[in-house]
Amino acid sequence: MDNRPIGMFDSGVGGLTVYKEVLKRYPNENIIYLGDTKSFPYGSKSKESIINLTKQGIEFLLKFNVKAIIIACGTATSQALDVVKNLYSIPIIGIIESTVQYISQNSNLHKIGIVATAGTIRSNAWASSLLKLRPDLEIINKPCPLLAPMAEEGWTNNEIAKLAVKEYMQGLYDVDALILGCTHYPLFTDIFRENLKPNAEIINTGTMIANDLENKLGKKLLCDSSSNGNSEIYLTDTECNFLSVAEKLLNNRNISPIRDALFWAKHLNFNNK
Amino acid sequence: MDNRPIGMFDSGVGGLTVYKEVLKRYPNENIIYLGDTKSFPYGSKSKESIINLTKQGIEFLLKFNVKAIIIACGTATSQALDVVKNLYSIPIIGIIESTVQYISQNSNLHKIGIVATAGTIRSNAWASSLLKLRPDLEIINKPCPLLAPMAEEGWTNNEIAKLAVKEYMQGLYDVDALILGCTHYPLFTDIFRENLKPNAEIINTGTMIANDLENKLGKKLLCDSSSNGNSEIYLTDTECNFLSVAEKLLNNRNISPIRDALFWAKHLNFNNK
Repeated sequence: MDNRPIGMFDSGVGGLTVYKEVLKRYPNENIIYLGDTKSFPYGSKSKESIINLTKQGIEFLLKFNVKAIIIACGTATSQALDVVKNLYSIPIIGIIESTVQYISQNSNLHKIGIVATAGTIRSNAWASSLLKLRPDLEIINKPCPLLAPMAEEGWTNNEIAKLAVKEYMQGLYDVDALILGCTHYPLFTDIFRENLKPNAEIINTGTMIANDLENKLGKKLLCDSSSNGNSEIYLTDTECNFLSVAEKLLNNRNISPIRDALFWAKHLNFNNK
Repeated sequence: MDNRPIGMFDSGVGGLTVYKEVLKRYPNENIIYLGDTKSFPYGSKSKESIINLTKQGIEFLLKFNVKAIIIACGTATSQALDVVKNLYSIPIIGIIESTVQYISQNSNLHKIGIVATAGTIRSNAWASSLLKLRPDLEIINKPCPLLAPMAEEGWTNNEIAKLAVKEYMQGLYDVDALILGCTHYPLFTDIFRENLKPNAEIINTGTMIANDLENKLGKKLLCDSSSNGNSEIYLTDTECNFLSVAEKLLNNRNISPIRDALFWAKHLNFNNK
């Protein structure tokens, strides 16, 4: 058993969808979350920039003696994970592998839609990982550059969000599963649902990671505390809409600990603790 | 007379609206344009971050022996100009002053709307500059965080853009003049027009700068070449949608020089020439 915290890294608030799922299943774990709001959005940046930012993020989290890091960001996973996971001695987990594992074991899924940032789609990381295990899959990639900024603006269920999702979902109606390849997108789940055939599965990568965490880390890396864990949230720039989106995302449930954690962290410089 | 180039700085492609207006009036000037696509968008960043990025941009442009710099970015003007203009020996011009001058001289304008990024509105730079010269003005500030990302996505005249602008324009219908306080926003001019009373003036800050440039620089800083000037466009990260938005923005007219200039500049590191 290991009571050190788990580190989580995202370009902003989106990774809280993963945070929420992990905490739901492992409420006793301590979490250090770093949102790189200074460099948000990652989706339109080059691979080189994203690798550098991800390294900086990981090195910040390492100062907290974390036992593992979850890259809770689709773009950073797809563009940087392959590079960074070999640079550090602790396990580094992205949002792709657990989902790909799940899909590879579900032979009733044939046609897969992937919605994600432009950078993630350009990397082809999702499609190539899926086809390696399931070469029979039909895959449709769809970059949705505006959805993460819309989520940060809090427009996740108004007419504009509906039209934007409808626009992006053209040609994706009859997929068997839709992978939300950006951690902001679970905020639009209800609208995605309206643009899918009945029974299509919507895959929240946070749920997949939470279901798979014990496999990934091994039992001896989980904590054995019997009380609720602590969270600390660090941002690299002002919190902007972080709290209001977090509120929506967590259905107000966990918001006051986040508010407290943020109180300590905001305006913190990226490279200092 | 001075044939050195003019430097222009923006967070991305929006500053080309200023570039277009300056070239329309001074076709013989040479321009070095720097688009900080790596850090776009500036609108949600802290003042400290924006000052640092603006300094880096200016220092890059100074290597080209520019005779003056136009900060063709609303957020950088409102948050950083006051600080940076005293740090360097050449004239540094933002997007606010020429427009404020114009409004202060038009006594038929009473109620002014300002649409801009969240950072620009938060800075209060527009309102305080206007009220200094015209304390009688009624001013309505409206942050529009999604419009610059929508412009970068090329969504400037579809149903989604119309709904977003309509949403942001609530309460602004009866202004006498609407200041487009972000250099991306001239791309939405037609839609802004639909949400304004007849005869309301839409102010493109690029036009105001072009009209005022000789005053600002003085005749002896303008060039005396009789042939068309050259442009070089530098980006701090991949060009992403830069070319397609530039195409729309310049009505295809100047796009092939931009394409050539970009060919030389893309993937350039920020700090080297």
